[in-house]
Amino acid sequence: METEKVNKTEFIIEDGKQELFIIREFDANRDLVYKALSDIDLLPQWMGCSSMRMEIDKLENKNHGSWRFIHIDGEGNKYAFNGVIHEVMVTEIIIRTFEFEGLPERGHVSLEFLTLEELPMNRTKITIHVIYKSVQDRNGHVQSGMEHGVIDSHNRLDEYLHTIL
Amino acid sequence: METEKVNKTEFIIEDGKQELFIIREFDANRDLVYKALSDIDLLPQWMGCSSMRMEIDKLENKNHGSWRFIHIDGEGNKYAFNGVIHEVMVTEIIIRTFEFEGLPERGHVSLEFLTLEELPMNRTKITIHVIYKSVQDRNGHVQSGMEHGVIDSHNRLDEYLHTIL
Repeated sequence: METEKVNKTEFIIEDGKQELFIIREFDANRDLVYKALSDIDLLPQWMGCSSMRMEIDKLENKNHGSWRFIHIDGEGNKYAFNGVIHEVMVTEIIIRTFEFEGLPERGHVSLEFLTLEELPMNRTKITIHVIYKSVQDRNGHVQSGMEHGVIDSHNRLDEYLHTIL
Repeated sequence: METEKVNKTEFIIEDGKQELFIIREFDANRDLVYKALSDIDLLPQWMGCSSMRMEIDKLENKNHGSWRFIHIDGEGNKYAFNGVIHEVMVTEIIIRTFEFEGLPERGHVSLEFLTLEELPMNRTKITIHVIYKSVQDRNGHVQSGMEHGVIDSHNRLDEYLHTIL
């Protein structure tokens, strides 16, 4: 029997814009949420769809660092993503590029601004602002099932944070 | 006595968008233009306003590399810029982030897609597509005198390419 979730992921996707916003609150303090977002051992506990396994090929979580993640489904199919990290302000901001390696054409890169905001009662609000090369790129990302994937990940993160609180 | 320039820098800056395009053709083949854009010894020959001296603090022109440039005026004032390099396809594409360190607030990062296209007669067309965090960020960059600075740089690059052809 599932209990109703208080925390929901909100998406702001305005027509004709080459950006979107993803917003979610979590029942854990900012240090802990930041750790879950950046620690090489904690990330695979929650990131990606629940039906997939995640491998971290590289994660240099620092100014002028870079990253590459691989998600693997039950049949062994691999979905790889990579990017560079422009800036990290520990527990507050991560600014990084993002590219799905499975697209038919390279160069469809987006830039993400992830901010963590402290809320009362030891809670934390995450805002991910993504800017895209074009409106078409943004719409393609949305149509690929981005929202479903993000909600699945966020619910897993929510559950994971409750287990370690 | 100045001769009239055939090559002009074109800007596409549409109202209400968080992007712009900078386009310029040069009288040199793509290999040579790419070299002038990426070589640590050639870049300071033309990049930046003619009244400033340029120093390269760092330039790792490769996938998941990074860069930092400093422009110094006649009075010794320094203007520093930095970013990460998402992808390089040699002579064809450079995708990188860009931030001016002199802004009052950090985090106003843009993402640049620079492409070099071969034209007939050993000429080359450069297109720089810049996407910004917001329309305000883009307009602020334009109002800071970006166009004047780019035209000055491009004219210097044009002259430099003619000297080595």
